[in-house]
Order: sequence, then C-alpha cells, then structure tokens
Amino acid sequence: TIRPLVVPLHAADLADLLERLTKDERLSVVHALGEELDSDVFAYLDDTVQETITDALPNSVLSTFVQDLDSDDVVDFLEDMDEEDQKEILSFVPAEDRALYEQALSYPEYTAGRLMRRETVTIPEFWTVGQTIDFMRDSDGEGGSDLPDDFYNIIVVSPNHKPVGLVQLSKLLRTKRIVPVSAIMETDPKLIPVDLDQEDAAFLFRQYGLVEAPVIDESGRLVGVLTIDDIVDVMDEEHEDDMLKLGGVSEDDFYSDFLKTTRLRFSWLLVNLGTAIVASLVIALFETALSKVVALAVLMPIVASMGGNAGTQTLTVAVRALATNELTTRNALRILTKEVLVGSANGILFAIIMGIVAWLWFSDPVLGGVIATAMILNLMIAGLSGVLIPLAIEKIGQDPAIASTVFLTTITDVVGFFVFLGLASVVLM
Amino acid sequence: TIRPLVVPLHAADLADLLERLTKDERLSVVHALGEELDSDVFAYLDDTVQETITDALPNSVLSTFVQDLDSDDVVDFLEDMDEEDQKEILSFVPAEDRALYEQALSYPEYTAGRLMRRETVTIPEFWTVGQTIDFMRDSDGEGGSDLPDDFYNIIVVSPNHKPVGLVQLSKLLRTKRIVPVSAIMETDPKLIPVDLDQEDAAFLFRQYGLVEAPVIDESGRLVGVLTIDDIVDVMDEEHEDDMLKLGGVSEDDFYSDFLKTTRLRFSWLLVNLGTAIVASLVIALFETALSKVVALAVLMPIVASMGGNAGTQTLTVAVRALATNELTTRNALRILTKEVLVGSANGILFAIIMGIVAWLWFSDPVLGGVIATAMILNLMIAGLSGVLIPLAIEKIGQDPAIASTVFLTTITDVVGFFVFLGLASVVLM
Ligand SMILES: [Mg+2]
Ligand SMILES: [Mg+2]
Ligand SMILES: [Mg+2]
Ligand SMILES: [Mg+2]
Ligand SMILES: [Mg+2]
Ligand SMILES: [Mg+2]
Ligand SMILES: [Mg+2]
Ligand SMILES: [Mg+2]
Ligand SMILES: [Mg+2]
Ligand SMILES: [Mg+2]
Ligand SMILES: [Mg+2]
Ligand SMILES: [Mg+2]
Ligand SMILES: [Mg+2]
Repeated sequence: TIRPLVVPLHAADLADLLERLTKDERLSVVHALGEELDSDVFAYLDDTVQETITDALPNSVLSTFVQDLDSDDVVDFLEDMDEEDQKEILSFVPAEDRALYEQALSYPEYTAGRLMRRETVTIPEFWTVGQTIDFMRDSDGEGGSDLPDDFYNIIVVSPNHKPVGLVQLSKLLRTKRIVPVSAIMETDPKLIPVDLDQEDAAFLFRQYGLVEAPVIDESGRLVGVLTIDDIVDVMDEEHEDDMLKLGGVSEDDFYSDFLKTTRLRFSWLLVNLGTAIVASLVIALFETALSKVVALAVLMPIVASMGGNAGTQTLTVAVRALATNELTTRNALRILTKEVLVGSANGILFAIIMGIVAWLWFSDPVLGGVIATAMILNLMIAGLSGVLIPLAIEKIGQDPAIASTVFLTTITDVVGFFVFLGLASVVLM
Repeated sequence: TIRPLVVPLHAADLADLLERLTKDERLSVVHALGEELDSDVFAYLDDTVQETITDALPNSVLSTFVQDLDSDDVVDFLEDMDEEDQKEILSFVPAEDRALYEQALSYPEYTAGRLMRRETVTIPEFWTVGQTIDFMRDSDGEGGSDLPDDFYNIIVVSPNHKPVGLVQLSKLLRTKRIVPVSAIMETDPKLIPVDLDQEDAAFLFRQYGLVEAPVIDESGRLVGVLTIDDIVDVMDEEHEDDMLKLGGVSEDDFYSDFLKTTRLRFSWLLVNLGTAIVASLVIALFETALSKVVALAVLMPIVASMGGNAGTQTLTVAVRALATNELTTRNALRILTKEVLVGSANGILFAIIMGIVAWLWFSDPVLGGVIATAMILNLMIAGLSGVLIPLAIEKIGQDPAIASTVFLTTITDVVGFFVFLGLASVVLM
C-alpha cells in the first residue's frame, strides 16, 4: 500500500503531492492514509484542493483534525466551509475551544482577527527573567497545551491585559535571572488592531521586519498574536492577486476544473469584447478613408499596440507602487508628470522610427507624418492614463489591479485609431 | 532645524521619508542629520535612492555605518557599489570583519551566500539546557557582540561544525536545565546550500514555514544563517520582478529619473514595435481583400485582441504556477490539455456572440461565419501558446516572465489576422 511511502513526508510535501493528483487518485490516497493523515497537511493545502477532500470526508472525521491545530490554523481550515459543516464539526469540539473558534470566525475575512493565533504568552511587568523562565517551564510541565507550538517573543502586559512591551526570547536567554523584564523589553512594540486588513498588517511586518506582533481589540487589550509564517502566506496571496488580476484572471484557477476555469475567464473576456467592439466602432467612422488608402488598415494596429504596451508599463509600475504604499496622493503629481514626460519622449523616438518606416514602406512622407503624430499623442495619453486610472480606482475604494487594464487598453485603442485615422482622413484626402 | 522631527522616527520610516524627497531635498536632510543618520536606514532604502546618497557622502563616513550592522546588512549595503568604493570603505574596517565581508561579497549575487548572516549561535550536541543558557549569558556578558541582534533557534553542531539539529528558543525556555539539548532538538532541519538561488531558498521558507535556516558549504559545514526578514524581502523582489516583467518593465524604475526610465522602457517597446510590424506584414498580404471589404479592417482587431487577452490569462496563471513550482514537466500535459479546452470552449462561446454581432452589423452571414471560425482557432492557439511559451522559456533556463508576453501577442496577432483575413479572402471573393 501507499502508507509507508507517504507517512515520512513533511506535511507541506504531502500537501503538494495531494495537489498534484487527480481528484480520484487524491481521494483514494486520503482513504488509504486514514487516521495517519496529519492535520497539519490541511494548513498547507490549496483551498480548492482542500474542498475536494473535506467534501468527501464525514464531519466527525474532520473534527479530529481540528483538535491538534493552533487556533489560527483551525480557523483557516474551517473558514471556507459551509456554515452548516462548520457548526457540525465544532459540535465535536470541547465547548471552551468552540467558543474561541466561533469568535475568531466572527471577525471579517481578510482581517488580522481571522489570521491571528489566539494562544498568547504573557507576563506581568514586574517579573524578573528568572520568574519568567520558571513560569514557562511550569506551563510546559502541567499540560503545556497553553503554550503555542513555537513563538519568538513574550508579551509583557499591564494588569488590564494591555501589551506594554515585548521581550525577545533571544534577549531573555542571554540575560541574568535577577534582571527585571522591564529592563530588557522593547517598550514601543508595533500593535495590530484586530480589524486591520491583512494586507495592511503584512505591510507593517515588511516595513519593520517583524516576526510576531500582538493584536489588540478596540480597548487596546491583547486578543491574539500574528506570526510571520501566516503573514508570508498573506503576502503571497496579495501578490498573486495583483499579478493575476492584471492578467485578467479573477482568481487562482490553476487547480479548478475545465468548466469552472472557462466560466471564470469568460466574464473578463466578455468585458474585453465590449471594449474591442467600441474600438471597432471608432474604426468604422473612417470607412471611406480605409477603403481608399489600404495602408491605413495595415498600419493602424501598430499605433494602438504601441500605446497599449507603453500604457501597460506605466500601469504596472503604478499598481505595484500603490500596493507597496509608495505611490500616494502626496507624490502623485510628480509621478504623473514623470510618466507623461517618459511617454512623450518614447512617443517622439517611436514617431521618428515609425514615421520613416511608413514613409519608405508606402513611399508616402505624409503617411509617415500622420503615423508619427498619432504615435506621440497616443504614448503621451498612455503615460497619463497609466497613472490616473489606477489612482482613480484606488480613490473610489476598489482594487486598481483588476479594472485598470481594461480601461487602459480601451483608451489607447480608441485614441490610437481615432487620431491616426482621423488625421489621415483630413490630410490624405 | 529638521533633526528633532526626524530622529525619533523608526529607521524604516526615515528611509521612506528619504525616498519620497527629491534628490536635492534628500541630500540636505542627510547632511542636516550628520552622525545621527542611523546605519539601519540603509537596510531599508530602495537601491536607486541609496545610490544617490552614497554617491554624495565620502567613503570615510560610509565606513562608519558598516560598523554597527549585522554582516548580511553590510553586504546588502556594499553590493551595489563600485568595487573601488567597496575596497575603500572596507579599508576603514577592522581586518577580521573585512575578510568576512569580502568572502560574503565573493558569493554570486542572488544566492544564499549573499543573503545570509555570518554570525551564528552554535552549541555541541552533548550540552544540557542549563549549559546552553549559561553560555548565552556569558557570551553576552563579555562583549556580547558575538551574538546576533535577534535569533530564533540555536544550531546544534557536530565537532566538525556540521549542523545536526535546531533547538527552538521557545522550546529551550520551557525545558528543565538538566535535559540534554539532543532530547529537544529538531533532528532533521532544512539546510540551505550556500550557492542556492535566493528564489529557491525563499521557496523552502514558504514551503516549510521556516523563520531561520542554517546555510552550509559544499562539505556540509555551517557557514551562516538565513532569516525570514531577509527572505521576505526576496519574496517581495521576486514577485515585483514577475509582475513588472509581465508588464514589460525590465526593472523597478519608480525612483529612477525621467531619462533612465525612458531608456529602460524604450528597449521593450522597440521589441514590441518589431512584432507589431510583423503583424502588419501579415495584414499587408491581404490588401486586395481589405480594399474590397472594408468591414474586414473594422473587425480584424477584435479577433487579435480577444486572442491576446485569452492568451494573457493562460500565460499569467502559467507564469505564476512556474514561480510557485506548481507547474512542472510532470503535470504540464494535463494543464496544457485543460488550457486548450478552456480556450476552445471560450472560443466557441465568443464565436457565437461575435458571429451574430458581425452578421447583424454588416448584414452578412458569411462574414459572421468567418470571424466565428477565426475566433475559435485564435483562442485555442492562445491557450496552447499561453502554456507552451513559458514552459519552453523556463526549459532553456530563462525567466518566463520577461519574454513570454511578447511571444504570445505576436502569435495571437499573427494567427488572428492571418486566419481571419485569409479565410475572408477565400470565402468572400
Ligand atoms: Mg504547497
Ligand atoms: Mg484563509
Ligand atoms: Mg485553507
Ligand atoms: Mg500560524
Ligand atoms: Mg498557517
Ligand atoms: Mg491587492
Ligand atoms: Mg495558488
Ligand atoms: Mg520602505
Ligand atoms: Mg541585496
Ligand atoms: Mg540595499
Ligand atoms: Mg537580516
Ligand atoms: Mg523570477
Ligand atoms: Mg520597489
């Protein structure tokens, strides 16, 4: 059987293995493993793949996985299920744990509250290093389940459970027993509000090089801890999100089946068809010119394509800078000016190149002049739109990654076709 | 003056402030700060911005920054400078440190060797928890500079300095003094070869949820430690890289000036112009048909654009899956089949929609049939190319993010125009 091969694997590798199998193979491995399926595996599984497994197992079995996990992983395991399944699985769990998980699930998705571990390691301000170490040894002796699997700081709290400092374990270990913790604690730790968006929490971790941060409620009391391993997953998700959305993919469909993928991709393509038809309507305005000078039909995609590409360059940099909080309303004007200048400069360069190419190709200097003018204008507009579109979308509270591309290419197509064909109609006839 | 405002800032925030200023403002703040400019600030500065500052300061001043930093941050500070400047700055540094930095700089860029911290915390296998804690307290007492600022594990090494286990500090602290460390250490730690690509190292951290990993040389001896804060930066860089390259931006130019940005963007646009001209040559093959049926000029960009967008969707998912090691030669065939099916399915749907639109618009059912056929074919080819192109580029050892887009749009443009116009020439005349 398959067990002896699979049991020695790290949970993350077993998760990868399960992801790579077809749905049927996957379920037979899961059944072959039986009770030896490690609960940690679920913490590493892609959500789409996890669903195929949890759908196939009875809730009574799923509830056994929940017992061994840290609270943040339990929440991650449960959050994608139906409320009904959640309830039934939780009904197998001891009442006090259940309350904890239910509260965690009550925080909005994509906030620190959903992501945090509820188990914290706290001490009062007046303790010494020695007392702290003794306390940790005792906690582990009598059950030990109160301490999380791994942690990097001890949180010093006031009597009303507000965090007042962090003691790095590496600092604690190298300090003599009699030293008070207040002498070695970092007194101004970064605190994460429980309702903070996970993307903003990830920003704080990256900005200040954190590995762990206390999470507080509205009254400033400690309610949990965010740790870097979960933040790394958030960063990865947010990056994936930006990258996929810029490419016109609404969600990661790598593990989705053919039908679901087709459906997901269809909607974006439909929007795109709409904008392509708009661009065609612009072309149709100039049917007379096109029927007389067939060179226009040959050259017009070049103007549109160069505008689209130059605009995409600007757009990509702008969306990235918005995601890293580098592009703000404070420096927007400077960046806008720079991008319009860059667009104009490259517009002029390509106007010269393409003007000469068109002139030689069709032995018509006027045609060269027309495409050159259209090129400059379209690349200038592309630079302008590449900054303004994502800024405007962010301003109205939407994700600039998703809708920016479609707006941008609509503008560069329409402007490209209109200026080139319009100018040609005027000048060449 | 500006000092009282700036001194209380976190190094990361001061770095952001400096990034947001113009070059002149930036230099006057740096001079106003003088010796109070924290060396940590450089660890957080964008490389382009760092250069403007280091160019303006004498190497003797820059060398003072080097003294306070952990070895990995020193390397990060020095690596972007001329070799001459590096040498001069290092000449101010004590000889033993200098040898360390020079060795680190000798590892190839973008490898674990460049990224690791040289300072390690190691103990022999036969020690107890008590001995370990006493050793740490003593190390700190007599200088303490041997211990890094912060760390999360102690590395247990064999007599010939090969790592045999890791002891989590959180585990050490909760264990009685008499317990041998061998009883609580993780015995099969993930080890990073010193020449491993930083992207692969980041993958291991993400895959196994690591916060710290020992780095070993060819003979398996410990040479340093990778920590999660630096890996987070790598993940961010690699993500930025993929996202920007897919958008046709070769490097992050947000802080580059107008001229440099124009130059960087120009080369990609030039490649794009080449492919746009190729597509135009295809159009030019069908001048007769275009001059007779002007509707062809109106409709042809729709076919090309839909192919480009469907292909970009597939390409984006494929490039992302390659970056996460989810797309491999083992499952390539299955993914390829799926993407061709998705392309064909959406091709059929949009063939129906666009066939009807073209028929009604130009009152010509044959024209509707022509665009429908071209649509199916182009979206099928788009799905095929969207997987094959990045796979092929990865196979020959190049970065699939950079060149994929240009190949893809060339194919979808050429196929789109050729099939649509070619079919029209045959059928409509
Ligand atoms: Mg995985
Ligand atoms: Mg989740
Ligand atoms: Mg999950
Ligand atoms: Mg966790
Ligand atoms: Mg987790
Ligand atoms: Mg986002
Ligand atoms: Mg994924
Ligand atoms: Mg910064
Ligand atoms: Mg570096
Ligand atoms: Mg640097
Ligand atoms: Mg570091
Ligand atoms: Mg890469
Ligand atoms: Mg950057």
